[in-house]
Amino acid sequence: MWIRLRAWLTGLFPQYRQDVLLLVIDLIGTFVFAVEGALAGINAGLDVFGLMVLAFVTALGGGTIRDLLIGAVPPNSIRDWRYGATAFAGGGAVFCFHGLIQDVPAHLLITLDAAGLALFAVAGADKALEFGITPLLAVMMGVVTGAGGGTVRDVLLAKVPAVLNSDVYAAAALVGAVVMLGALRVKMPRGLAMSLGAAACFVVRMLAVWQHWNLPKVMR
Amino acid sequence: MWIRLRAWLTGLFPQYRQDVLLLVIDLIGTFVFAVEGALAGINAGLDVFGLMVLAFVTALGGGTIRDLLIGAVPPNSIRDWRYGATAFAGGGAVFCFHGLIQDVPAHLLITLDAAGLALFAVAGADKALEFGITPLLAVMMGVVTGAGGGTVRDVLLAKVPAVLNSDVYAAAALVGAVVMLGALRVKMPRGLAMSLGAAACFVVRMLAVWQHWNLPKVMR
Amino acid sequence: MWIRLRAWLTGLFPQYRQDVLLLVIDLIGTFVFAVEGALAGINAGLDVFGLMVLAFVTALGGGTIRDLLIGAVPPNSIRDWRYGATAFAGGGAVFCFHGLIQDVPAHLLITLDAAGLALFAVAGADKALEFGITPLLAVMMGVVTGAGGGTVRDVLLAKVPAVLNSDVYAAAALVGAVVMLGALRVKMPRGLAMSLGAAACFVVRMLAVWQHWNLPKVMR
Repeated sequence: MWIRLRAWLTGLFPQYRQDVLLLVIDLIGTFVFAVEGALAGINAGLDVFGLMVLAFVTALGGGTIRDLLIGAVPPNSIRDWRYGATAFAGGGAVFCFHGLIQDVPAHLLITLDAAGLALFAVAGADKALEFGITPLLAVMMGVVTGAGGGTVRDVLLAKVPAVLNSDVYAAAALVGAVVMLGALRVKMPRGLAMSLGAAACFVVRMLAVWQHWNLPKVMR
Repeated sequence: MWIRLRAWLTGLFPQYRQDVLLLVIDLIGTFVFAVEGALAGINAGLDVFGLMVLAFVTALGGGTIRDLLIGAVPPNSIRDWRYGATAFAGGGAVFCFHGLIQDVPAHLLITLDAAGLALFAVAGADKALEFGITPLLAVMMGVVTGAGGGTVRDVLLAKVPAVLNSDVYAAAALVGAVVMLGALRVKMPRGLAMSLGAAACFVVRMLAVWQHWNLPKVMR
Repeated sequence: MWIRLRAWLTGLFPQYRQDVLLLVIDLIGTFVFAVEGALAGINAGLDVFGLMVLAFVTALGGGTIRDLLIGAVPPNSIRDWRYGATAFAGGGAVFCFHGLIQDVPAHLLITLDAAGLALFAVAGADKALEFGITPLLAVMMGVVTGAGGGTVRDVLLAKVPAVLNSDVYAAAALVGAVVMLGALRVKMPRGLAMSLGAAACFVVRMLAVWQHWNLPKVMR
């Protein structure tokens, strides 16, 4: 069944078109994360340089940490100028059109962020597998890719990273990566497994925002 | 003399048994550090995800930084699932049996922690030497292995790392690594040098706790 | 024209003398940064170990991050004991002669720091180019080399890094790296391009301190 599906999908999306599609989605995710990082920089009263740093770090920090850990050196963010340029474009857009971006409805930003998280988590786990990382840790690399950038951003702002004690964010990335690995385990084609994982992450994240889910805590 | 001692020890502990012994001790150290990290997470009011992150980072952060710096990529913590699994088991144990762990007497935890520190410091310096790092910096890698995890944990909790201004902790790791390197310099067999170094670190740490030693500060 | 200039400079400074000169300048920069790091440690009330850590991290953190990112592993700071020894000497000097160092006039420290920043920025961008990093990101690596150590120091002190929201510091490093890359683009010899870049960074930094320049911020 997967083979027939793969044949159909391959007809629809030949390899080069898939690659372009993945790159475009990846750059969109990078842009959205950069915008969020830059907004956090403005809220912390940083200057334009600090804003650019937060844009870069939020957008590309997770993937960079993943690449360092799995041994993909230099990391993508340093090897390919398009990622850095996109992150700086996001930061620059916030700096120049700050008023307009404040008018973007919050739920649109949250939705785009969830989409970016889903893509990063799945792409991160996939890349870790490619580098021969064992599944348990490949899942972790997916989470790091999705949530690592925001973590570094919060560390730079001298705050406890929001992912450590707020609503279901990194956990959604975890679900997405686990679903993808499960799908690969039952021999689904890679593209379908990644799509399923991303969809799972996106749905969990949106449900969590909508229903105000929180992870359990130990009572002190 | 060392040669005769080595022959005797080799009879007692053949290579494969030594390796198993080292792995078991290493995993016990990982578990203890993970428990401490998770307890710090609970005290900071983190949710179960944050608790797991702190468990992993506290237990394996030091070794991971060492491996990145000496070029042992991917780091042990990412290459070998047993370390990650042990760290998550430590975090999970704290989450599930929090009440019980609070009943563990503090001095038992401190003793176990000192044992973990001793082992990590010595193993870290040894691994750095193996990768051709010069002795001065191999000692530093021992300290990073022992105290790095707690440092990253404190950074994530937005606190000044305790090792930078509290009692003799990293300094004990330093003593252990220096003793080990000195023992190797006088041609002691590796296992004996490591044992001596670990014992020195453990004794210094326990004496420091018992006698409330503190490192000197410059008066402002 | 560059060729004639290069011939003249090569007569004046043969290669081996250039290398020694570069190393000496590099070690002086390392020492100055280490002194600043150690002073920050004293101001934060750290003990002698914390002071040494801050000295090392401030002096060598930026170059270490750059080396990890561009794939120069193990980083220079771990491979060559002279850097670590110089950093620890800087920290030790602060610990032993704290009173004397407080008598060093502030503008001398600022001038030396600007010189160190200029050198680190230019050397960092140059090394990134050597490792095949694209110019946009080589510039960024120059900034990381110059300003990264101070950033890690501030993170360890649980403060928002000063470079993110204070006066023109990292921006001066950026200018220096850009000038150097521009000079290389018009085929200037490497030594001249590096000197020009370093001079540009130094001048911008000193002007910024003298004129109290600040980067623009977005008004909230």
